[in-house]
Amino acid sequence: MSDNSALELAKRLIACPSITPATGIVFDEMEAMLQPLGFEVSRFIAGDRPEDEGLGGAVENLFAIRRGPEGARHFAFAGHLDVVPPGEGWGSDPFVPKVKGDLLHGRGAVDMKGSIAAFVSTLHSLPSDLGTISLIITGDEEGPARFGTVALMDLMAERGITPDLCLVGEPTSVNQLGDMMKIGRRGSVNMWITVNGTQGHVAYPHLADNPITKLGTILSEIDALQLDEGTDWFQPSNIEFTDLSVGNPAHNVIPAKAEGRLSIRFNDQHSGDSLSGLVREIVERNGGELNPIISGEPFLTPPGELSGLIGEAITEVTGVEPELSTTGGTSDARFLSKIVPVVEFGLCNATMHKLDEAVAVDDLDQLAKIYALVVKRALS
Amino acid sequence: MSDNSALELAKRLIACPSITPATGIVFDEMEAMLQPLGFEVSRFIAGDRPEDEGLGGAVENLFAIRRGPEGARHFAFAGHLDVVPPGEGWGSDPFVPKVKGDLLHGRGAVDMKGSIAAFVSTLHSLPSDLGTISLIITGDEEGPARFGTVALMDLMAERGITPDLCLVGEPTSVNQLGDMMKIGRRGSVNMWITVNGTQGHVAYPHLADNPITKLGTILSEIDALQLDEGTDWFQPSNIEFTDLSVGNPAHNVIPAKAEGRLSIRFNDQHSGDSLSGLVREIVERNGGELNPIISGEPFLTPPGELSGLIGEAITEVTGVEPELSTTGGTSDARFLSKIVPVVEFGLCNATMHKLDEAVAVDDLDQLAKIYALVVKRALS
Repeated sequence: MSDNSALELAKRLIACPSITPATGIVFDEMEAMLQPLGFEVSRFIAGDRPEDEGLGGAVENLFAIRRGPEGARHFAFAGHLDVVPPGEGWGSDPFVPKVKGDLLHGRGAVDMKGSIAAFVSTLHSLPSDLGTISLIITGDEEGPARFGTVALMDLMAERGITPDLCLVGEPTSVNQLGDMMKIGRRGSVNMWITVNGTQGHVAYPHLADNPITKLGTILSEIDALQLDEGTDWFQPSNIEFTDLSVGNPAHNVIPAKAEGRLSIRFNDQHSGDSLSGLVREIVERNGGELNPIISGEPFLTPPGELSGLIGEAITEVTGVEPELSTTGGTSDARFLSKIVPVVEFGLCNATMHKLDEAVAVDDLDQLAKIYALVVKRALS
Repeated sequence: MSDNSALELAKRLIACPSITPATGIVFDEMEAMLQPLGFEVSRFIAGDRPEDEGLGGAVENLFAIRRGPEGARHFAFAGHLDVVPPGEGWGSDPFVPKVKGDLLHGRGAVDMKGSIAAFVSTLHSLPSDLGTISLIITGDEEGPARFGTVALMDLMAERGITPDLCLVGEPTSVNQLGDMMKIGRRGSVNMWITVNGTQGHVAYPHLADNPITKLGTILSEIDALQLDEGTDWFQPSNIEFTDLSVGNPAHNVIPAKAEGRLSIRFNDQHSGDSLSGLVREIVERNGGELNPIISGEPFLTPPGELSGLIGEAITEVTGVEPELSTTGGTSDARFLSKIVPVVEFGLCNATMHKLDEAVAVDDLDQLAKIYALVVKRALS
């Protein structure tokens, strides 16, 4: 009998190099793991039209479903098989999984081949008629994510498939497995401000129009904005300026153009569009132009059934009481939250995106046990 | 008899290349012109110590004096023999004087070998016992001016020499010879602002300290300053921001440092130090550092004897009523004004510092006539 431990499955996935955007061999491996379990596996490439070039490249996506009895509940697990580039300076080959002491080393060990392996391992321990289970697995979560989870959601919509609950296996634990799950995420928008003026000599300012003066007024009006005071589950939304640029070497010249950039992390009191409108009014009133790029809208799955199930399972397996958090960056949960209650829970994130990414072998086993309890209770 | 017309003398000076800082041959020529006129000529090199390196290089200066009867008044003419680099693209060799039609072409034709030539030519037409006449001639007015006119003033102080009136031969005319003289100049100070913060991720602003926010506050407080409303003879002092720099390519990173630069042109209600103190208070209160570099203090020679004499002579020779102005950049008059009433008047400045710098031959003659009337009446 083959070894279907989380450790063994994680090694098999890590051994398939899959720098974002991922296609091919890592999906072959994934499909090979799921078919013996009775899953119907659909794979497709998205973002390969000529007009998609430069938006994240061609991405492979995999949707797998094993249907339960008529009317059974549907539990979905979502994740990604792409990884960030390993960088230089690893102690061992990032794509050759290696156990050293208590740790399994390899790119993707925690983010998030390890948690995918834990979930698949779990499936071997559960009765196959428990209910409907699906896996929503993309090859682009780490990149632009234009053709990843959103394309999978399109496929599900076409087939009329909507899960009842969704667990995203992102590495949400901080200091020990189970200390944090994410029930929401802030949204994120970057904005570029350009102010054009009229170049001239500082001795003759009446012949010029200084764009830095206008940009200064814009900065100070934006700085005075109080977006909100936070909510029960979110920190206050926050604006940070991240760059200023004029590039004028001449001490006696009023420049022709001044540019600024800012980043807003915002809670569910706002949307990327509402904030863009707010800032645009300030920028345009002061003679500037605004170019916002929304990286993600906020989402919140208020504490309820799913976070309850996960919390109980965590405490039962590890003894830890998890914190319900909405901190940190964005994840694909921002897309899935539009169709299903979604909570993120997975391995410890200390080494994610870093050199010598590694997961504790014990954590893989414990995570598989937690996932097993969650799925069993969700579908019972 | 040799030709001592302003045109001929100007040609001789233009033929001596003297890109700033100037030494040598152009001063030999100048000395050769003055000695036959009975002037005692002192020449010296300044700024040639090892510690002066990078501050404008070694500079030659020339002080010439012809003493009048005991108790006679002392009229000084000040100017510079250095020129700005010619640049590429002249119609003829910039250091080979060439008359084309009504114009004499050559680097320095108007700024200011032409007016030095006009003044020396004038001396040939005046009685030699008129009074004390001096020439204060530097080889660095166009550069840092650290070792030019200030070194000449040191020499004069050592010798106990203080003129009663001083005419600086800068090209102050605009559209026609005589339409403008300068009775003052604004001061100029550039200031560099540096704000250090603590770098961090935009998602965790409580762990960072954003220097752009502070720089924004500084810009807006400085922008709100009203330095003055101008005076009878000066425009209002004016602050212009000339650069902003952060240089942070990462959209999600709060940068560690933000820098700004500004330039103030100011009237005699302020000094470089008083303005530095005013801006420093704002910058330091907001956590930044200020590095001011004062290029020049303002000066004003209120309308009086000298501007009156010059104005009358201009109108008599050209029919033009000169405007008394304090506009434009700085000149060496800012130094001389500390010891003597000083007014600037010279040729038309349309081609100064440009390709194909040229002076109207008629203007050279008329300027010599104006200078002759001024000196004669000043010393009578």
